[in-house]
Amino acid sequence: MQNLPTFDDVSAAAQRLVGHAHRTPVLRSRTADAELGAQLFFKCENLQRMGAFKFRGAFNALSKFDAQQRRAGVVAFSSGNHAQAIALSAQLLGMPATIVMPQDAPAAKIAATKGYGGKVVLYDRYTEDREQIGRTLAEQHGLTLIPPYDHPDVIAGQGTAAMELFEETGPLDALFVCLGGGGLLSGSALAARALSPQCKVYGVEPEAGNDGQQSFRSGSIVHIDTPKTIADGAQTQHLGNYTFPLIRRDVDDIHTVSDAELVAGMRFFAERMKLVIEPTGCLGFAAARKLRAQLQGQRVGILISGSNVDLDRFAALLAG
Amino acid sequence: MQNLPTFDDVSAAAQRLVGHAHRTPVLRSRTADAELGAQLFFKCENLQRMGAFKFRGAFNALSKFDAQQRRAGVVAFSSGNHAQAIALSAQLLGMPATIVMPQDAPAAKIAATKGYGGKVVLYDRYTEDREQIGRTLAEQHGLTLIPPYDHPDVIAGQGTAAMELFEETGPLDALFVCLGGGGLLSGSALAARALSPQCKVYGVEPEAGNDGQQSFRSGSIVHIDTPKTIADGAQTQHLGNYTFPLIRRDVDDIHTVSDAELVAGMRFFAERMKLVIEPTGCLGFAAARKLRAQLQGQRVGILISGSNVDLDRFAALLAG
Repeated sequence: MQNLPTFDDVSAAAQRLVGHAHRTPVLRSRTADAELGAQLFFKCENLQRMGAFKFRGAFNALSKFDAQQRRAGVVAFSSGNHAQAIALSAQLLGMPATIVMPQDAPAAKIAATKGYGGKVVLYDRYTEDREQIGRTLAEQHGLTLIPPYDHPDVIAGQGTAAMELFEETGPLDALFVCLGGGGLLSGSALAARALSPQCKVYGVEPEAGNDGQQSFRSGSIVHIDTPKTIADGAQTQHLGNYTFPLIRRDVDDIHTVSDAELVAGMRFFAERMKLVIEPTGCLGFAAARKLRAQLQGQRVGILISGSNVDLDRFAALLAG
Repeated sequence: MQNLPTFDDVSAAAQRLVGHAHRTPVLRSRTADAELGAQLFFKCENLQRMGAFKFRGAFNALSKFDAQQRRAGVVAFSSGNHAQAIALSAQLLGMPATIVMPQDAPAAKIAATKGYGGKVVLYDRYTEDREQIGRTLAEQHGLTLIPPYDHPDVIAGQGTAAMELFEETGPLDALFVCLGGGGLLSGSALAARALSPQCKVYGVEPEAGNDGQQSFRSGSIVHIDTPKTIADGAQTQHLGNYTFPLIRRDVDDIHTVSDAELVAGMRFFAERMKLVIEPTGCLGFAAARKLRAQLQGQRVGILISGSNVDLDRFAALLAG
């Protein structure tokens, strides 16, 4: 295992991403501010390339490949956005990519991954082990495996989103970050500790998949069955060997929200901010709404993490 | 009648808007570029305050009121976004606002106008004359009438969106702008002639309401009945005494698109760029798609003008 990444790694990742990742806008909403009694700053990673922050970590990791690694190519397993991020990054860097995706991943995500030139291998997420499939492919073909969150270069890349947010807003009182495997959360915490040391950093999970909260509070990594939640980007079963210690050290607490609260968040973003946000992307805002009593008068950052949802599914979720 | 506005008026408006209007992002789409064989630059006025470019013109006009005008307040007639723009601008500048709106305007637009503190007066757009209602209110109560498009300060304010676009992209080969009464189009043309003189500037109307195209080609202002189209922001019956001469002088052509082409545009923005765009806001992109043969290899600006559509109506239009 390598050393844990530091804020210096986040800064180095930011340099690698210049001219490749979008510097996404930070949007405000008077309606949201009025509802919460706080000043909210929405970092719109839904407007990142391929529609999610995952591009940052993937591109950073692949940028560090040596010549031999580039020739053989990358393999990744992912419930969706990481898949597209690896496929697009590999395409941009001129290397082959093989992506292991669940059979029930949103059709739009599978199609987009193929559209970026990725070779897609499907599996059943309730009976098969994607990590094992990925490792086997890596060994058989000499590919480099880039996991979706538990990798120092991925964590450092994801941290650049919060870094840009703090650069634009200055210090904040609180930051809400969606939590699946913890790549975005641990990277964000590195940025927060360096750029806004007093900022409370909160991870947010779906209620059905609160392994992160259990792990954070118990002090050791808790494994759960694949949770059934509409937040398909947060259906991870456990934190990682890199993300867990960073989260324990630099994060203040982990909160959970229900699927109904995620749908209410999707509706808010669509009606008031005119943004199509996937369920996982609403985790941070949904938690901030629940915790409004303790946020009065504060300056609060919200990472909106992704927009990749089938339009039909989007309409069906809002129709209730 | 005052003199026609110039690019100096657009520049002065830009100064007044600093700190009040958002400098909206310019987004790219690889998918759109590939489909059209061109480089497209989407200026996202859907992410402007109150969700449409109209804030620019309204705030600019109200900023120029003298003390007596501010005390008495403003009156406006509008099919929607101008209403919200005037109500919000008046609220920010601390003056009363009365808004004359059609009974069948989208519920979200009426609610938002009231939410900004505007007093709303409803009328029947198929039997009553909104301009007469507005003028009567102005005379009875000493209010200053700010029309939705035919006013030099409104035109100059709307021109700041294209000005920002050119500042960010440099010269373009073509610019597509939605056309109702011509405020955005004439202001955009002023910016284009100053900042990118060789750029073709195109207005785009719904097929059912092609009064602008008829006027442009015949050389005199053509009046039509209120057109029935899903583009509710472009249901104007005629160009104005300021907008028409500017359009004749500085615009290259007027194109039209069908309601079905607008729905296809809404679907594209929602699926691929994850943006909720109202039908009127899709006019520019829909026309660029039709004209792709003549845009090959070009750098093309598209103004996305507004996002204010009821979520239920949005879903219904996409469901077809």
